[in-house]
Amino acid sequence: MIEVVLFGTGNVASHLFKALRESKSVKVIQVYNHRKESLDFFKGKVEVTTSFKDLKEADLFLIAVKDDYISELASQLKPYKTLVVHTSGSLPLLSNNDRNGVFYPLQTFSKEQTIDYSAIPICIEASNPSDLKILKEVGAEISQKIYPINSEQRKSLHLASVFACNFSNALYGLAEQICQKNDVPFEILYPLILETAQKIKNNSPKTVQTGPAIRGDQKTIDFQLNQINSTEIKNLYILLTNLIQKEQ
Amino acid sequence: MIEVVLFGTGNVASHLFKALRESKSVKVIQVYNHRKESLDFFKGKVEVTTSFKDLKEADLFLIAVKDDYISELASQLKPYKTLVVHTSGSLPLLSNNDRNGVFYPLQTFSKEQTIDYSAIPICIEASNPSDLKILKEVGAEISQKIYPINSEQRKSLHLASVFACNFSNALYGLAEQICQKNDVPFEILYPLILETAQKIKNNSPKTVQTGPAIRGDQKTIDFQLNQINSTEIKNLYILLTNLIQKEQ
Repeated sequence: MIEVVLFGTGNVASHLFKALRESKSVKVIQVYNHRKESLDFFKGKVEVTTSFKDLKEADLFLIAVKDDYISELASQLKPYKTLVVHTSGSLPLLSNNDRNGVFYPLQTFSKEQTIDYSAIPICIEASNPSDLKILKEVGAEISQKIYPINSEQRKSLHLASVFACNFSNALYGLAEQICQKNDVPFEILYPLILETAQKIKNNSPKTVQTGPAIRGDQKTIDFQLNQINSTEIKNLYILLTNLIQKEQ
Repeated sequence: MIEVVLFGTGNVASHLFKALRESKSVKVIQVYNHRKESLDFFKGKVEVTTSFKDLKEADLFLIAVKDDYISELASQLKPYKTLVVHTSGSLPLLSNNDRNGVFYPLQTFSKEQTIDYSAIPICIEASNPSDLKILKEVGAEISQKIYPINSEQRKSLHLASVFACNFSNALYGLAEQICQKNDVPFEILYPLILETAQKIKNNSPKTVQTGPAIRGDQKTIDFQLNQINSTEIKNLYILLTNLIQKEQ
């Protein structure tokens, strides 16, 4: 049995807690948060504490707090010989802790959404092979997709996810705005947006690129640029069109 | 019974043909193409012709050929009193044909992909109300989502779809490239990409925006800009970050 103390009570922490409740080989034995009120959700389900002095002995300290608080929290755990890992996509290993690692579930956890944990990729890294093995075991209790990824790779993955997810969503927002301005129901676009995302499961995005840019349809490109008032959005259109045409 | 002559043998034409085969109230009675060999798929299933002289009398001439050939083809149909419609998202009404309209299925039809027609939005427009009724009836045989959209609105919709779909796919391609360069399996990103697209079915994209830009996390933004070598991609990152922050 791998015993875990969980630090944090936000989206990631509570989703990990829920996912591990079903496990027979990994158990969250305590949840820490510096604010007592934040622990309400966990009370009665697991031991809770607001004090570092009361931390239980465990095999894994799993830090699932905001990026900005991770290093401070980890430094409080320096005296322990326990494996200390964070759940951030952008931070490196916690070099001040003897045994340290990363346990990074690559998914946006929003409180409303129900999530199929088994499909969430978990990227793991540890400063030594035996600790990596522990993280693999914990990961396997949650998901079928475990990827050993080093810090350099994780940085690239994070950058890639900003382009593929955060920025795609910004483009959805822009499309919604264009629709609203012209009294077009944005929902018309929804099936096409979903299909575009689904397609890349089995195809490299470059091989399924569609639209005026890849067709070299300059007439439509010029026509559409004329429809756009904002200089920034025009520039964005041109940059993305060039990107598509360069990749041909 | 609405009788249809279909012009064209490409993806859109063959998908429309398949979708209408099941219908009891709409029937494709003939398929036209100027190249004989292109008609092979349709032979034995429906009457085919390569000659305008042999066109059958019908209630609807449905032009599903490439944008560039539509106006030439439509001009050949000028002598007919039949309703003539095209299937293009970017072209206006065929003003040279007496009775004319648009029947625009908003989806990328690729030959390999099986498609759930009933979920495909079809945007219709016609120069008179009784013809719009015909298009509504034909559309209803294929899809549950029929939207009467005028030419101005369709232009906006097309622009919006370039941003939401073509350009999102370009960002997926960029993300794939970043992953490949750093030996990271691109498939790790797939569930997150899919979730990002699925989320907007029930949420305005602006309300579910995530990432360093919306958090105002300048440290990560600077860090990621440093990871990017290409000036164009840097500019793209900055433009999209500004777009997200402006919309807050």
